[in-house]
Amino acid sequence: MSAAPTACLLIIGDEILSGRTQDANLKFIGGRMAEMGIRLQEARVIPDVPDAIVEAINTCRARYTYIFTTGGIGPTHDDITTTCVAKAFGRNVVRDPEAVKTLMAYYGERANDARLKMTEVPDGPDVELINNRVTAAPGYRIENVYVLAGIPNIAQAMFEAVAPTLQGGDPVHSSHVDAFVRESEIAAELSAIQLRYPQVSIGSYPSLRDDKFCTSVVARSTDQGAISAVLNEVADAMRLKGAEPTRPPLG
Amino acid sequence: MSAAPTACLLIIGDEILSGRTQDANLKFIGGRMAEMGIRLQEARVIPDVPDAIVEAINTCRARYTYIFTTGGIGPTHDDITTTCVAKAFGRNVVRDPEAVKTLMAYYGERANDARLKMTEVPDGPDVELINNRVTAAPGYRIENVYVLAGIPNIAQAMFEAVAPTLQGGDPVHSSHVDAFVRESEIAAELSAIQLRYPQVSIGSYPSLRDDKFCTSVVARSTDQGAISAVLNEVADAMRLKGAEPTRPPLG
Repeated sequence: MSAAPTACLLIIGDEILSGRTQDANLKFIGGRMAEMGIRLQEARVIPDVPDAIVEAINTCRARYTYIFTTGGIGPTHDDITTTCVAKAFGRNVVRDPEAVKTLMAYYGERANDARLKMTEVPDGPDVELINNRVTAAPGYRIENVYVLAGIPNIAQAMFEAVAPTLQGGDPVHSSHVDAFVRESEIAAELSAIQLRYPQVSIGSYPSLRDDKFCTSVVARSTDQGAISAVLNEVADAMRLKGAEPTRPPLG
Repeated sequence: MSAAPTACLLIIGDEILSGRTQDANLKFIGGRMAEMGIRLQEARVIPDVPDAIVEAINTCRARYTYIFTTGGIGPTHDDITTTCVAKAFGRNVVRDPEAVKTLMAYYGERANDARLKMTEVPDGPDVELINNRVTAAPGYRIENVYVLAGIPNIAQAMFEAVAPTLQGGDPVHSSHVDAFVRESEIAAELSAIQLRYPQVSIGSYPSLRDDKFCTSVVARSTDQGAISAVLNEVADAMRLKGAEPTRPPLG
């Protein structure tokens, strides 16, 4: 088995860092990466500052199999992602003829300069448009960098348009067992179980439900049998503390 | 006026990258930073991988005034933040006597090893606990790194406990004007306004409301008068396109 492909998400936009807008793209892309067996190893939220964007793109594209960016490809002055991607690759920015054609067909006489800005891509025959079912404005791929819109439903449509072309790995399965028990009461047992199952990543997530302490233990692995075995043992540990697991264990 | 202090948020946890959990700490801390005049220049979401955590801490603490981390300071085996922070600073991990006392007072005989793990901090007389009103387990500060819990209400309580000790800058004010207009119809005007007001950061955010295209134009600056002037001009540009701004302009 070859090493699993890796990925990084670059979330571009002052509005995320200022707290104005809640990002929703990480949760979606993170979930899809897990399903596809691609390891999302990092996400960075960066401001609308050219040097910061160029540096993040160049650092991350050298480090991971795939880079996804979200945000900054609209029609206004604060949409600077394409300028920065082009600079990171040492290329000029050009209007893509196919994108212009699509946009003209959609807008007709209303295709002003701002709208045509959305047809801009870095120059080069290897740049591929990412058309999508939501808008007439495309994203694009350049080498291992996938440039997507920031608006979640458009980002998702663009992601799904390229998903079939991505090289996946063994899917990472995930399952969990929950109980009304404090995680500190089963911590020793979880440590022991983790040691016996190094191929499973065991996460423990506390929360309050109905004012009672609850722990959700999540097992993630490419090996579904090992997940079942782990969750059975976790459920036993919960019962030993007098807590009934809220889901039947697998298997 | 001295340069504004800067900050970076490190969100630590596989559960955020896998899409299981929606992060809520960035939105909160980003908003509070803006109010306090501290420039949040980056956020990174990193996995529960020691080398990745150590590298991110050391890269970012050299670059920004303040580093906040969230996540990974609970009682279970997957809580590895303190081990990594200590390693980043080249220090050992010890149980803090004051934290042990607080925890013992809270748990009494139920203070097992897992719970005592939550009293661990990097060694050194300069490490300061961040007590909070929600839990008996503290966060802590080491130099310019503030280590907070991941659970949002605890992270927020810890943040507010240290907020009065942070050196702020001129607060960044923010206001906006919205209208049912496509952003591409006012893009040229926004560019011209941005050029005339370099001290204001103007962001344009499109959305769909009631199936109609809407644009929210946000002006951010330390200069409230400039924000008012910008938003008056933006509102005029919207009206020229036949769209009525949904808020009266300021000033």
